[in-house]
Amino acid sequence: MRRWNGWGDSANHYPLKASGLTFLQSRLGTATPLPDAEMATVLQAVPASRMPDHPLIRTDAETRIRHARGQSLPDWLAMRSGDFGRFPDGVAMPTKSAEVKRLLAWAQDNDVLVIPYGGGTSVAGHINPPASDKPVLTLSLAGMNKLLHLDKESQIATFGAGTPGPEVENQLREQGYMLGHFPQSWELSTVGGWVASRSSGQQSMRYGRIEQMFAGGRIETPRGTLDIPTIPASSAGPDLREMIMGSEGRMGVISEVKVRVTPLPETETFQVAFAPDWETAKTLVRSLTQAKLPLSMLRLSNAEETRTHLMLAGHERLVSVLHRYLSLRGCRNEKCMITFGVTGEKSLVRHTLATVKKRIRAVGGTVVGELLGKKWEESRFRSPYLRHGLWEHGYVVDTFETAVDWNQVTPAMNAMEQAVRDNVGEGEKVHVFTHLSHLYPQGSSIYTTYVFRSSDSYHNTLQRWHAMKEAASEAIVAHGGTISHQHGVGRDHAPWLHHEKGEQGIAALTSLVKHFDPQQRLNPGCLLDDTQPRIEKES
Amino acid sequence: MRRWNGWGDSANHYPLKASGLTFLQSRLGTATPLPDAEMATVLQAVPASRMPDHPLIRTDAETRIRHARGQSLPDWLAMRSGDFGRFPDGVAMPTKSAEVKRLLAWAQDNDVLVIPYGGGTSVAGHINPPASDKPVLTLSLAGMNKLLHLDKESQIATFGAGTPGPEVENQLREQGYMLGHFPQSWELSTVGGWVASRSSGQQSMRYGRIEQMFAGGRIETPRGTLDIPTIPASSAGPDLREMIMGSEGRMGVISEVKVRVTPLPETETFQVAFAPDWETAKTLVRSLTQAKLPLSMLRLSNAEETRTHLMLAGHERLVSVLHRYLSLRGCRNEKCMITFGVTGEKSLVRHTLATVKKRIRAVGGTVVGELLGKKWEESRFRSPYLRHGLWEHGYVVDTFETAVDWNQVTPAMNAMEQAVRDNVGEGEKVHVFTHLSHLYPQGSSIYTTYVFRSSDSYHNTLQRWHAMKEAASEAIVAHGGTISHQHGVGRDHAPWLHHEKGEQGIAALTSLVKHFDPQQRLNPGCLLDDTQPRIEKES
Repeated sequence: MRRWNGWGDSANHYPLKASGLTFLQSRLGTATPLPDAEMATVLQAVPASRMPDHPLIRTDAETRIRHARGQSLPDWLAMRSGDFGRFPDGVAMPTKSAEVKRLLAWAQDNDVLVIPYGGGTSVAGHINPPASDKPVLTLSLAGMNKLLHLDKESQIATFGAGTPGPEVENQLREQGYMLGHFPQSWELSTVGGWVASRSSGQQSMRYGRIEQMFAGGRIETPRGTLDIPTIPASSAGPDLREMIMGSEGRMGVISEVKVRVTPLPETETFQVAFAPDWETAKTLVRSLTQAKLPLSMLRLSNAEETRTHLMLAGHERLVSVLHRYLSLRGCRNEKCMITFGVTGEKSLVRHTLATVKKRIRAVGGTVVGELLGKKWEESRFRSPYLRHGLWEHGYVVDTFETAVDWNQVTPAMNAMEQAVRDNVGEGEKVHVFTHLSHLYPQGSSIYTTYVFRSSDSYHNTLQRWHAMKEAASEAIVAHGGTISHQHGVGRDHAPWLHHEKGEQGIAALTSLVKHFDPQQRLNPGCLLDDTQPRIEKES
Repeated sequence: MRRWNGWGDSANHYPLKASGLTFLQSRLGTATPLPDAEMATVLQAVPASRMPDHPLIRTDAETRIRHARGQSLPDWLAMRSGDFGRFPDGVAMPTKSAEVKRLLAWAQDNDVLVIPYGGGTSVAGHINPPASDKPVLTLSLAGMNKLLHLDKESQIATFGAGTPGPEVENQLREQGYMLGHFPQSWELSTVGGWVASRSSGQQSMRYGRIEQMFAGGRIETPRGTLDIPTIPASSAGPDLREMIMGSEGRMGVISEVKVRVTPLPETETFQVAFAPDWETAKTLVRSLTQAKLPLSMLRLSNAEETRTHLMLAGHERLVSVLHRYLSLRGCRNEKCMITFGVTGEKSLVRHTLATVKKRIRAVGGTVVGELLGKKWEESRFRSPYLRHGLWEHGYVVDTFETAVDWNQVTPAMNAMEQAVRDNVGEGEKVHVFTHLSHLYPQGSSIYTTYVFRSSDSYHNTLQRWHAMKEAASEAIVAHGGTISHQHGVGRDHAPWLHHEKGEQGIAALTSLVKHFDPQQRLNPGCLLDDTQPRIEKES
């Protein structure tokens, strides 16, 4: 069963290995875990629902608890402490677009706020109930989880918006097709959520970001139904899909999603290589990307992430052999790990692999091949579980990310890492490392992970996080980065959005939101910092 | 010097070859050219300007004539007959963004309408002055035609929005870079115009449509300046670039454009092949596209376009040898010509070529190689001149285009061609043929050319065109096609836009236009059929 206070299915548990714990203790000192609240205690704390009766709306306390929070660090601390702050007054589970439409009309008649809800995997406060005198309805799309149609000639699949990643791929694979959208949240996040938050998956180099996949669909808005037809490309005015992608529930509820799919590939390989240092590695991956080589994924870990990754892997003897082997070939303490994937037609994959390996060797890098690549593939969706393994030992992990042009990649990364080091608090340490995982000819995403000790209380731990998160966000915008490359804006990132959108851009988005939702009934305070104070400041 | 009543530089002339004329006469009958108006006559017809004085605004008659019309067929007939209908009251030529901003403020203070103007190459009535009691100012970006900055690491070039295609490529090539946006209008159209009309070039398979190239820039709007920063990818809310692309001057004046460029490729080849019939050829090009092979262009002519193309080429002996050769190999009367380009790193180009040729042969096609490919390359921007060569003999040529999903390509093409045949008029014939030139995994553009005899008067010729254009547009939307894949909406296509945008989509776009331009001062009647009756209905 899905955890009510953490990530994933409770049957899945990936404890921290002994070598990993020793490593963290050497970096951060030993730590003391904070006590977890019990579900029974939280059930007592849920206030009476203010929701009027409706046959599709559940108002029992456990359902409201299970839809109250996402997966941001403030959400985690709220769930672990049991101090949720606010709960939705009810959760609706429609099974078709017409029911979504009727629920919106009913919400209008009953002056109810509505939060659209996909997989509940937001790490930016997208689905947290705002403070309001009005009843708050969480509208879950979980009941709309089917492949509705597949046009094999045009390679378009129509899904209910609440279909989660594994169900998307399972239902397509039965017919020989796949979508290929693999965000780290893939186990739980949904196709509608990907559209609403403009997400990106690990193999976006081949399959595209959701922007390249989203071909059309149905959005129920307070003004009426917006049906976006599938057209492969058009010069006929601004693209409506691009208004809806990233709208984060502010313009309507996405009920059906049409996506571009592909036949299952002939072959696929993931491989690992090492380059001697960061600048060599960065220039290499930039050149691979700018050469438009048909890779399906490319990821570069900085030296600290490389060290951490090898240390946490737990195979001490093997890793030690690897270090010696790489050292002989010139990749020593500052070595950086490159993971890459090639997917598709066999002969093109062979050709691409040969080209990539040649280029890696030309700059003094070493290709170690498929063994570590397979490891990456096996554990590609495991990162969100890591928070559990660390938490048990008193450590807290979080991530933040951006994307910048190539000329800003190194300075932005350094500033982001330094921001958390400078703000973890007097006498405290933070373990911070970074990778580039979505590479474009123009620039790259930058994804930073940081681990620190929980403080003596939930409140102080949240404050510790706040200081680092705000400093990192400032560092991002100071380097021209987007406040999010793949996590969206939600409530947590909204205060920084104006740096990239500008005054006129924010005004245009606000006008569009007000056009679709004149009463500001849909997910107020999300995306645009316009209607509500920020959630996490209050909790 | 640029022609005032037709396409391109008056030094360029490509008369119809004798074999081509014979071919057309056999299909359509002989024709009588209509008389062309002289510039001197038109100069007499230009009314007094209503424009208040401004140092950056020219109001002389010839400048107003030269900015009154684009390149649609109604525009052509207006220019050739001398019956322009309306002229702008003045033409402004700013040289920097700050002047554009001041001109907009001045237009506001003086209650003047403003039409942003790039290369004047619209084939959909984008830049035609609307009927209005207010003075109409055409704001030409021609003075802003420089490469302002090139970031080689991030591969971003900043251009003045009025930079035309050849200047874009010349200024980049000096530094070893290129953009690769090659619409047929490339000689005259501008980078700002490409953004405003969401255009697409002949090698969009490699370089992308303008959507993939446009990285940011500056837009002067009536509400203030919108600066869009360069970010390689973002999940932070709806994409502002996607609001501006296709805005057709309704939201602001694009003054600076940042585009994604690439180093000049190592190698490039264009080749031609033939397949035995339409269905075989269509299935082949679809499979090449869906296999994500790294082609830079791919084009499929239907049997009638193939016949016409070979006939108009004028090399009778060579073509006759080619027909015999292809016939022996199974490509006879219904054969379809496939033109493809491969561009980039040498070894990848070699590998891709081999793969493509193998696939062509596997379905009974014949690759004839580079000779015809070079021919295509040499004459790739020559099509717009064809109207002159035909007009001299009394024939009129026009084109229309759409894009549809693969499952609609053949029915849509057939219906579009039939629509013009059914509506050319009692007893008249029309010569009509089609190609697919922008292929996507999901579907394809469909580009239809039709040639007919001019009628006994300009008025009747325009009526003949109207009947065919309207029927073709109805056929397009009836098959789920966009009203334009690459020409934009303008005033001519606005009445059909609601078919793809829907009631809610049109309302959202209208709201956005009103947000940026509350007084509807910018290019009224363009894109959205909201403020003015259609131009061509009145002329």
